[in-house]
Amino acid sequence: MWAGLRPVGRAASGGYHRYAWTAADGELRAWFREQAARRGLRYEVDRNGNQWAWAGDPAAGDAVVTGSHLDSVPDGGAFDGPLGVVSAFAAIDELRERGTAATRPLGVVGFADEEGARFGVACVGSRLACGLLDPDRARRLRDADGVTLARALERAGLDPAAIGPDPERLGRIGTFVELHVEQGRALAGLGRPVGVGSVIWPHGRWRFDFRGQANHAGTTRIEDRHDPMLTYAHTVLAARKRARLAGALATFGKVEAEPNAVNAVPALVRGWLDSRAQDTATLDALVAAIEQGAAERGGRDGVTVAVTRESHTPGVAFAPGLRDALAARLGGAPALPTGAGHDAGILAAAVPTAMLYVRNPTGVSHAPEEHAEETDCLAGVTALADVLEGLACP
Amino acid sequence: MWAGLRPVGRAASGGYHRYAWTAADGELRAWFREQAARRGLRYEVDRNGNQWAWAGDPAAGDAVVTGSHLDSVPDGGAFDGPLGVVSAFAAIDELRERGTAATRPLGVVGFADEEGARFGVACVGSRLACGLLDPDRARRLRDADGVTLARALERAGLDPAAIGPDPERLGRIGTFVELHVEQGRALAGLGRPVGVGSVIWPHGRWRFDFRGQANHAGTTRIEDRHDPMLTYAHTVLAARKRARLAGALATFGKVEAEPNAVNAVPALVRGWLDSRAQDTATLDALVAAIEQGAAERGGRDGVTVAVTRESHTPGVAFAPGLRDALAARLGGAPALPTGAGHDAGILAAAVPTAMLYVRNPTGVSHAPEEHAEETDCLAGVTALADVLEGLACP
Repeated sequence: MWAGLRPVGRAASGGYHRYAWTAADGELRAWFREQAARRGLRYEVDRNGNQWAWAGDPAAGDAVVTGSHLDSVPDGGAFDGPLGVVSAFAAIDELRERGTAATRPLGVVGFADEEGARFGVACVGSRLACGLLDPDRARRLRDADGVTLARALERAGLDPAAIGPDPERLGRIGTFVELHVEQGRALAGLGRPVGVGSVIWPHGRWRFDFRGQANHAGTTRIEDRHDPMLTYAHTVLAARKRARLAGALATFGKVEAEPNAVNAVPALVRGWLDSRAQDTATLDALVAAIEQGAAERGGRDGVTVAVTRESHTPGVAFAPGLRDALAARLGGAPALPTGAGHDAGILAAAVPTAMLYVRNPTGVSHAPEEHAEETDCLAGVTALADVLEGLACP
Repeated sequence: MWAGLRPVGRAASGGYHRYAWTAADGELRAWFREQAARRGLRYEVDRNGNQWAWAGDPAAGDAVVTGSHLDSVPDGGAFDGPLGVVSAFAAIDELRERGTAATRPLGVVGFADEEGARFGVACVGSRLACGLLDPDRARRLRDADGVTLARALERAGLDPAAIGPDPERLGRIGTFVELHVEQGRALAGLGRPVGVGSVIWPHGRWRFDFRGQANHAGTTRIEDRHDPMLTYAHTVLAARKRARLAGALATFGKVEAEPNAVNAVPALVRGWLDSRAQDTATLDALVAAIEQGAAERGGRDGVTVAVTRESHTPGVAFAPGLRDALAARLGGAPALPTGAGHDAGILAAAVPTAMLYVRNPTGVSHAPEEHAEETDCLAGVTALADVLEGLACP
C-alpha cells in the first residue's frame, strides 16, 4: 500500500506538500477509493468531504471506525496521517486473515483537511461534521492565492452549500480509534513500539503585532530608533525561557516583517506564538506572562505590541474506560499525553474515542525526516487489529 | 513642480512605491522630460537609462551637474531623491532670475534605479556609468516576479546590450553636486537648514542562514529542539548591543523563515544584516564579532550559522577642497558624515563631487513620515543656486 502513496506530492527535499483539495490530495483520495474497492468495502464521501469505507452496514449503528488523514503540512513527513489510514486498511486485512467475524459494522475513515496547511484551520472535515466549525466561516476561508474553500470544494465536485454538522452519521459510530505516528520520543525512551493516548493538551495560536517606525537603517541613530525587530527578538527568547520553566511549550515558527527591506528599520514585525500546556490555567498564565514581557520591552524600544488570539482549542481527555481497556489488551501499553491536535481530539466530544501511537525513534515530525521503523509500523497494525477485534468481535 | 510628482506611485499609507522601470517610474521620467522641455533644456537619456537636461553644450566639457534620483524604496517618503531633482530645476530657475551668465555647461541629472528596490542592487544607473557594476551581471538581475533587468530596460525602450561604462560622458563633467534630504537629525540639532557632505561610511549587507531541524511545535520537547528562531533572535539583540558599543550601526530589517508555519519549529531562519561604521576596520571587527556570537549561540541551540557577504561598499570622502569651498560659500554650513549610499558616493570615484543636505526635523526617512519644512526646502534651493553660481558663473 505504501508504494502507491510514496510519490504523491513529494518535493525534492523528500518532504510532502499534500494540501487539501489540490491535485496531490485528489491522487490520495483516489488511492483511498481504490483501497476500499480492492477489499469490497462500501465507499462513500460525506457532505464534508470525509472519505469512508465500510465492512458491514453502518446504518446498523454502534460502528467501530478507525482511520486518520492523508493531507500534510508544508514539507511534511510520510507518516503523519497516512500511517493511520494505511494501518486501518491493513488491520481490516489482518482481521480477515484471522477469520474473525465482526458483530459491529467496521469502518475506515480518511478525514479531509486535517493539517489546515492551505486554508489555515486544522481538522476542517471533522470539525464541520461535529458542528465545531461554522459552515459560513469555512466557506469563506481563503488560501494564499485567494481561492475560497467553497470554490475548492466545488472544483473537487462537492457541494459547498451542503457542508456542516452531520449528527446522523456520527450517531452511528460507537467507537473511534485513530492510530498515529508518535510526535515525540516518549515510546523510544520507554522501549515500547505502541502506546495509548491519554490526553491532548489545550493549545492556541496568538498573533503578536509589533509596531515601530520604519526608518533608514544606514542613517538613523540607534537612540532615535523604534525597531520592532528588537522587541520581537526579545519576546522569542523570553517565551522559550518562560515555557521551559512552566513545563510547557511556546514557539514562534512564523514571522513577517514590513517593509522587509535589508536597509530599513521595520515598521512592523508580526510573529505567531503557538503555545500548549498540560492544563488551561498553566497555558493562560504562560501566554499572559509572555504578553506582559513583550509590552514591557516594547515600552523600552518605543514599540507597541498588540496581541490577537487566532485560535484556542481546549484540552481533551480520551474516554478513560476505553483507554484502559485498550492498554490492557495491548499488554499494558503506556498511556501518553500529547501537545498535538488530531481529528480524534475533535471526535472525542461526540463519540467515545481512543488513540494509538507508534514509536518515532527521533521524535521528529512535520518534517521530511519524520520516521517510524517498519517493524514498529507492523506492530502498530497488529495492535490496531487486536483493538478492533476486541471491540467488534467479542 | 511638486504637484505633478505627488500622486505618482503613492499608496494608501501615503508612502511611495516607485520602482525602477515600472509604470510609476515611467510617469516620473515623463515628468523629468517635461521639466526640461519647459525650460528649453536639451533632454537626453544615456545608454544606462539616466536622464539629463542641459543648459549649454556638455561637449564643451568641465560641466557643472546637479541632480539625484526619482525612484523610491517600498513605502518610501516623498523627499528621498525627488527633492534633489526638483531643487536642481528650481536652482536653474533661480540662476536665470538672478540674470547670471554661466561660463560652464550646466546639467540636471536624474539617475536610474538608485534605491535598488526592484532588482536588489542600489545605484544601478550611476554604477554602470562609472564601470562599478558588470553589465552582464546587471542584465541578469531579476525582480521578485523573475523579470530580468534586461527585459525591463527593453520594455522601457532601451537597448540592454548598450549598458555599461560611459567614460566619455563622465569626462565632460567637471563637478557634480547632489542635494538630498538629511536622513538623520544632525542639522535639526545644530539649528541649521543646510549642511555639506563630508564622508559616506563604509557599509555592507550580510545574509545569515540559521539552519536547525523542522519539527512539530506542539510535541517536540524543548530539550529536543534545534530551533533557529532562537539563534536568530539572540543575534538580533547582540548585533544591536555591539553596534551601540562600537558607535556604529547594525540592523536586521529583513527576515524569512521556512516553512514559516505557526505550528512548526522552523528548519531555517534567514536574516539580513545591514551594518555601517565610520571606518572599514570598525565595520569589519563589528561584523566578525556578530558572526562569532551567532556561531556560539548556534552551538548551544543545535543550529548551524552560515554567513554570506552580499555587498560591500567602501567609504567615500568627498573632495575636501570642493567641500570647504561650498561650506564657506554657504556661510559656514556644517560638514556632515552619513551612513547612506548615494549616486554622489558612486560618482565621487570619477568626478569631483559634493553633497548638500536639507534639514529633516524628525530624521525619519525611507518611510511615509519622511519630511522637510517648505522653508528649509527653499533654503536648499537657494544654497544650491549659490553653489552653482559660484562654480559656473565666476
